[in-house]
Amino acid sequence: MAVKPSIPKGTRDFYATTIAQRNYLKQVLQRNFETFGFEPIETPTFERLETLMGKYGEEGDRLIFRILNSGEKVKKADLNALEKNDLRAFSDSLSEKALRYDLTVPFARFVAQYQNEIVFPFRRYQIQPVWRADRPQHGRFQEFVQCDADIIGDRSLLQEIEMIQLYDAVFADLKLPAVVVRLNHRKILAGLAEAIGAPERLIEFTIVLDKLDKIGVEGVEKELIDRGFDPKVIERLKPMLELTGTPEQKLDKLDTILGGFEAARTGIDELKYIFQTLQKQGLSAVTLDIDLTLARGLNYYTGMIVEVLPPPEVKMGSIGGGGRYDDLTSAFGLKDKSGIGISFGFDRIFLVLEALNLFPKEILKNTEVLFINTDVAALDWSLQALQQLRKQGIAAEMYPVETKFKKQLNYANQKQIPYVIIFGEEEQKQNVFVLKEMTSGTQTRHSLETDIRPLLNR
Amino acid sequence: MAVKPSIPKGTRDFYATTIAQRNYLKQVLQRNFETFGFEPIETPTFERLETLMGKYGEEGDRLIFRILNSGEKVKKADLNALEKNDLRAFSDSLSEKALRYDLTVPFARFVAQYQNEIVFPFRRYQIQPVWRADRPQHGRFQEFVQCDADIIGDRSLLQEIEMIQLYDAVFADLKLPAVVVRLNHRKILAGLAEAIGAPERLIEFTIVLDKLDKIGVEGVEKELIDRGFDPKVIERLKPMLELTGTPEQKLDKLDTILGGFEAARTGIDELKYIFQTLQKQGLSAVTLDIDLTLARGLNYYTGMIVEVLPPPEVKMGSIGGGGRYDDLTSAFGLKDKSGIGISFGFDRIFLVLEALNLFPKEILKNTEVLFINTDVAALDWSLQALQQLRKQGIAAEMYPVETKFKKQLNYANQKQIPYVIIFGEEEQKQNVFVLKEMTSGTQTRHSLETDIRPLLNR
Repeated sequence: MAVKPSIPKGTRDFYATTIAQRNYLKQVLQRNFETFGFEPIETPTFERLETLMGKYGEEGDRLIFRILNSGEKVKKADLNALEKNDLRAFSDSLSEKALRYDLTVPFARFVAQYQNEIVFPFRRYQIQPVWRADRPQHGRFQEFVQCDADIIGDRSLLQEIEMIQLYDAVFADLKLPAVVVRLNHRKILAGLAEAIGAPERLIEFTIVLDKLDKIGVEGVEKELIDRGFDPKVIERLKPMLELTGTPEQKLDKLDTILGGFEAARTGIDELKYIFQTLQKQGLSAVTLDIDLTLARGLNYYTGMIVEVLPPPEVKMGSIGGGGRYDDLTSAFGLKDKSGIGISFGFDRIFLVLEALNLFPKEILKNTEVLFINTDVAALDWSLQALQQLRKQGIAAEMYPVETKFKKQLNYANQKQIPYVIIFGEEEQKQNVFVLKEMTSGTQTRHSLETDIRPLLNR
Repeated sequence: MAVKPSIPKGTRDFYATTIAQRNYLKQVLQRNFETFGFEPIETPTFERLETLMGKYGEEGDRLIFRILNSGEKVKKADLNALEKNDLRAFSDSLSEKALRYDLTVPFARFVAQYQNEIVFPFRRYQIQPVWRADRPQHGRFQEFVQCDADIIGDRSLLQEIEMIQLYDAVFADLKLPAVVVRLNHRKILAGLAEAIGAPERLIEFTIVLDKLDKIGVEGVEKELIDRGFDPKVIERLKPMLELTGTPEQKLDKLDTILGGFEAARTGIDELKYIFQTLQKQGLSAVTLDIDLTLARGLNYYTGMIVEVLPPPEVKMGSIGGGGRYDDLTSAFGLKDKSGIGISFGFDRIFLVLEALNLFPKEILKNTEVLFINTDVAALDWSLQALQQLRKQGIAAEMYPVETKFKKQLNYANQKQIPYVIIFGEEEQKQNVFVLKEMTSGTQTRHSLETDIRPLLNR
């Protein structure tokens, strides 16, 4: 019985136009990574299970797609575990490999594995699909592309500056205006944690802080008090709730409030340096902002934290992010390699470009010329001319069978082929061919020796 | 405890040089597919299990990588099947998805699924990795790239001609000389099966025939008789054992021997037509041959069968192949779609290009200029100049920290960066920078306003 053709939920088929657009985005990213001195790497689709497990927290582990062991190996199924409802152990007994869940862990594995061959500081980029067993929903897929750039093996703040310049270069190249890069610093957050007197409640504090736009200063104050934060502390930190103005002004205010805490002091100084240097150098597509509520990867990042927001007219979450880390590779036995990494949200940037109509028209590849199949006598010249065009890099086809003109012209229309060449009985008598422009319907006659390429309006 | 970093057997990490070379090969293929009017498609990494199972024979089914069901679903494990040692059923109860095993079945699924939107004849190409649970060994990987081009929805022999011209165009573009395209025809084989009087032993017959090079005509005769083929038949078919000469001569001989069998007659006529047309049109990189022992995909192909061999100086099996089929999509409910498909053996063609040193040098991307990090005073000008170069598309970096010159130059050497720019204390006093060419050691001095790009020998 025939299988009803369909694909698993959360996956996608891609067609010509989308592929051309995705390749365009990929090429812009690659080009900029390479002018910044980044080298590409590619890692296997599946890694050893132990390489991935335990790196993404319990929830992450559950979302990893495992490969079922092949052949006889499934006999090793741990039925005791199944009986005890220890599904993790049962699954572990059935699989040794798993699909790449992100690019960070394979990169860490790569750096540790080839540490003796790599020249540090190592600048690498990687654009590859990853897989997550997330419940599929609108705009969330089980297979999607990630795109990361990292510099590992150096602590210089120049790297932070370079990474923001890289964001700027890519978005300028994509002609994507008004992208906002929001900065925060792990050490400022550490100072803030000290300041509120409840370091363990830092995240909770920043979550409330994040509601500022919606509920205003008083709302935030009230909620913090309701949640049991010390009113005296809130009073002291109040200027932080009104953190407005330019990034410099914000950093100056933070200085006043948190400058007394040593960690915060370092964080503020670093952001000031980064900010001033970038301002001096100039940014094209990107504007900077300071955002204390930015707390991504708090357990992971140790310095600057960055998040990228799309132009305000597109309603969407962040289209990129990253930060400075100190301990990426120690799970693989390589200690003390500080680095900085940023990611580009490939699928989301794609949607932004689509929404703002920013894909260049000329990237769409399409057949430009269709040779009408008239009769056997036309074949020799037609095939020669066809081959000639292709050698000149022009996409061309010949309709495969001699059939009604209407059907052949219909094929050209459906495939949006702009030119059709007719070499029928009449034309053969006069040693000419007819070039028909499909949009206007204009037909012109040319001698058989004519170089066709210049006739095409390209 | 730290995990020892490694990857599963049969998989590969790729670095910058290899990636650049693979991208080059991919781009040559894409460019030629597109000038021939083929559109790209991409299908998901995993398909529904039922889409793939039963399409590749029993052995193939065993080599399909299955995805283990996530979470609670593993509770549905069919323990009875396990007890009965029915590992196939046990595995079926644990997985619903599997990794793409080739590009043909996903393509068939795609055509059936989108049959109402596709304009036929549909020319598609696809370059994507596939996965097979083969025992890894030298040169055989569990993850490798396949590259297919198909035209589906038409029976015209023009397609056969186009496909061979496509091989020719790709290998000419790759500057790969002396590629041999061997042709056979399913219907000639059918005629041969009739002629030997034992249709069910056709494969066995062609296998013996294939030993001609090694054991000679007499050896083949003897083995056929030993195997119980009718000596009278062998006598009659003997001229076929001595099938030498040009493809035309071979086809003429075949005509004499097998022309009486109707199926063979059609096959011979088709190959003659294909051959004559191609000869008239001219081939650049490829020579044609007729090879009766070519019996790939015998159950699958219905017309011309093709196999591509690398230049004789490279010892390697076929680097491509394909043929005409009639029944690709009926497993997915779409009947009567004849088509023709060819594949390019991506990894093998890569090895051939490597062995013959045919990768162009200029495809290797590398940082061209390293700015030495001298002191804070140098930073402003250096970062500006760096940014300027990058905007001109030149890959450039700045060493991230102020450290010994020797260490920085060493970095440039290790990364084979051809130029280094020094803007130290001395240079700052005189408002110049020094450009050092690393290979020759030559140093030149230039004013700070100099456009650096023309100084680089690119």
